Amino acid sequence: MSTVSPLAPGAFPDMLAVDGVRVATVEAGIRYKGRDDLLLVELVPGAAVAGALTRSLTASAPVEWCRTALASGRARAIVVNSGNANAFTGRVGTAAVAHTVAAAANALGCAEDEVFVSSTGVIGEPLPAESTIVEKLPRLVEALAPGAWEAAARAIMTTDTFPKGASATAMIGGQRVRIAGIAKGSGMIAPDMATMLAYVFTDAAVPQPLLQKLTSRAVERSFNAITVDSDTSTSDTVLVAATGAAGNPEPDVALLRGFARALEAVCRDLAHQIVRDGEGASKFVEITVSGATSARAARRIGLAIANSPLVKTAIAGEDANWGRIVMAVGKAGEKADRDALRIAIGGVEITRGGQVVPDYDEAPVARHMQEQDIVIAVDVGVGRGKATVWTCDLTHGYIDINGSYRS
Amino acid sequence: MSTVSPLAPGAFPDMLAVDGVRVATVEAGIRYKGRDDLLLVELVPGAAVAGALTRSLTASAPVEWCRTALASGRARAIVVNSGNANAFTGRVGTAAVAHTVAAAANALGCAEDEVFVSSTGVIGEPLPAESTIVEKLPRLVEALAPGAWEAAARAIMTTDTFPKGASATAMIGGQRVRIAGIAKGSGMIAPDMATMLAYVFTDAAVPQPLLQKLTSRAVERSFNAITVDSDTSTSDTVLVAATGAAGNPEPDVALLRGFARALEAVCRDLAHQIVRDGEGASKFVEITVSGATSARAARRIGLAIANSPLVKTAIAGEDANWGRIVMAVGKAGEKADRDALRIAIGGVEITRGGQVVPDYDEAPVARHMQEQDIVIAVDVGVGRGKATVWTCDLTHGYIDINGSYRS
Repeated sequence: MSTVSPLAPGAFPDMLAVDGVRVATVEAGIRYKGRDDLLLVELVPGAAVAGALTRSLTASAPVEWCRTALASGRARAIVVNSGNANAFTGRVGTAAVAHTVAAAANALGCAEDEVFVSSTGVIGEPLPAESTIVEKLPRLVEALAPGAWEAAARAIMTTDTFPKGASATAMIGGQRVRIAGIAKGSGMIAPDMATMLAYVFTDAAVPQPLLQKLTSRAVERSFNAITVDSDTSTSDTVLVAATGAAGNPEPDVALLRGFARALEAVCRDLAHQIVRDGEGASKFVEITVSGATSARAARRIGLAIANSPLVKTAIAGEDANWGRIVMAVGKAGEKADRDALRIAIGGVEITRGGQVVPDYDEAPVARHMQEQDIVIAVDVGVGRGKATVWTCDLTHGYIDINGSYRS
Repeated sequence: MSTVSPLAPGAFPDMLAVDGVRVATVEAGIRYKGRDDLLLVELVPGAAVAGALTRSLTASAPVEWCRTALASGRARAIVVNSGNANAFTGRVGTAAVAHTVAAAANALGCAEDEVFVSSTGVIGEPLPAESTIVEKLPRLVEALAPGAWEAAARAIMTTDTFPKGASATAMIGGQRVRIAGIAKGSGMIAPDMATMLAYVFTDAAVPQPLLQKLTSRAVERSFNAITVDSDTSTSDTVLVAATGAAGNPEPDVALLRGFARALEAVCRDLAHQIVRDGEGASKFVEITVSGATSARAARRIGLAIANSPLVKTAIAGEDANWGRIVMAVGKAGEKADRDALRIAIGGVEITRGGQVVPDYDEAPVARHMQEQDIVIAVDVGVGRGKATVWTCDLTHGYIDINGSYRS
């Protein structure tokens, strides 16, 4: 579990500081020894925040708090701990969140609904917030500094094998703005020791309703378009905060086009890194579905393919087993025309008109299957809806990681 | 792949012949060597038939034919081959079905819509029906004999490691009737070399509309309540035929209560055997969900737990990881009250009121996890809906079987 994923990028990216955002990390001793496990992000007064939270009906106490706090639309602080998810912890869990929020609001002199919290790690165990998080907050506030993204990304890791970060710049009305994000996630997403968390920061000034709109769209096309094992965490959280420190002119939707693209690119980059750190992953898989009744239907078909254990094990075995893709399309529950189905792997067309193409030569497809990045394209022949999703393969490594007794 | 599942029953059950049903098998050389791969079932004139077919939108040509033929409500013949699924084979596949149906109708002197066909095995490869199935039909007709259930069950196997059969008797209006069934299935269900097929026969006289009603209900509580890997075959088929040879009085619903129970028991027994032959399975898992808004919601929550790779790998690792059950309940998309959730494993209550029970002792649960049959009970605290589903664990064996290149 401690060796770095073969799909990991070479190094943590060079990332710029974002004006109005300071971070600090500390070892709070929640579960891990010898590493930081607590992150504080401070935002300048007036920063707008948008977000997306798990749809799980057994959401954690921190997620429930974030859902409430998002109504304010403003953020001054984000507190994230790893090692304990504070999920399924009943009233004790709610109290742990309340203590953390009150302490952070007090330390930074802000309102409680401007404080966001996330917890990731083991579920069902009480989080001793007072003796860990609350006690460390003063030291964290003292240590706040801009740009320590890699330390921040490392502090929120659980079963992750590498820290995840991405950044971009964009122009808004002639003013350059910066976007920087960090994320963690490995299984998609074990409540046990994994969960998807992502925090993206920008110095752009973006009105909160617009920020939420752009965030929702970017999340749909990135974090909601990836899957490792079809499991959904009780703690999944994406927050996007805009400090306004760049001093760009008040933007409308048209002015934000470039910013929206850059925000989506950062989210997609982070999402891809989560897949590349998928438990046991040896292949990164891109699946594009076209010809569906809608983009939503295309995404659902794509996820049915991406979540199929039979498709995933075939990819692990470097087997160009397109029959399993036919099966997954059939079970997705979205309209598809069997007799118009086209499947291509690695750019080579395999099926057309409900059967394998004449004189199909598997050799080039078999060669593609031996590569690390696999590209699958499916056209279901009933409309113009299109979507791309990303996943990894299912290997012995996944069984090793998740089938061993909790240590 | 050839070693018998550790969860297999000791031997094929002693099963009675059913009056009005004769079977024959032969080696047709479709794919396998040295074993029978073609089954013919002959039913007496007037036998009623009911069924359930895959909901896959990429259903095979034989399934499409069965859907049409079921409208007649009568069956004289069932022809089943293993080794080739005749799925995703376009017009050639439809023609192969037509040739088979015509030849069987001719050989037995019946109407074409009284002939049912199933094919299971590799998909996407043309089935040379003329030179295999059609050519062997005369020999099969000559060989027809009652009661050769084990040979019949063996002829339809693909990746199955043991033949599957079950039988029961029931009383209808003072007359004893017999029920006997065979099934195959291993992955749930690879289109590649696995698919779920089940054929159940009775000598009872049951009007076709009632037979369909009882069949649908039994299938919901048996074949549709099992999962190995969440994948749905292009070929899944269940047929229930009633010959009427027992001469019981014309029954109504009340008179059929015992018969309905016996039919459900046979279907459940066969369904359990499919799970016990699940690819790579080392544990048989029963999951009962209560307190849901409806039986349907309970089944959906149960299947979310049963299909979760994280739950399945935990069971393989003999880890009493109830947090993953909480996660799966949360993602099922059915109403559940996190703060009323009760989870018990092996009869030991673990959670109550949204958190782990006070002084939870994991020792007895850990002991239960080491057994071969695992029992999980979940109450989601919002209603009275209840359902039971069955699955197996997810092991290295599954990856070995499905991640190796097609040989």
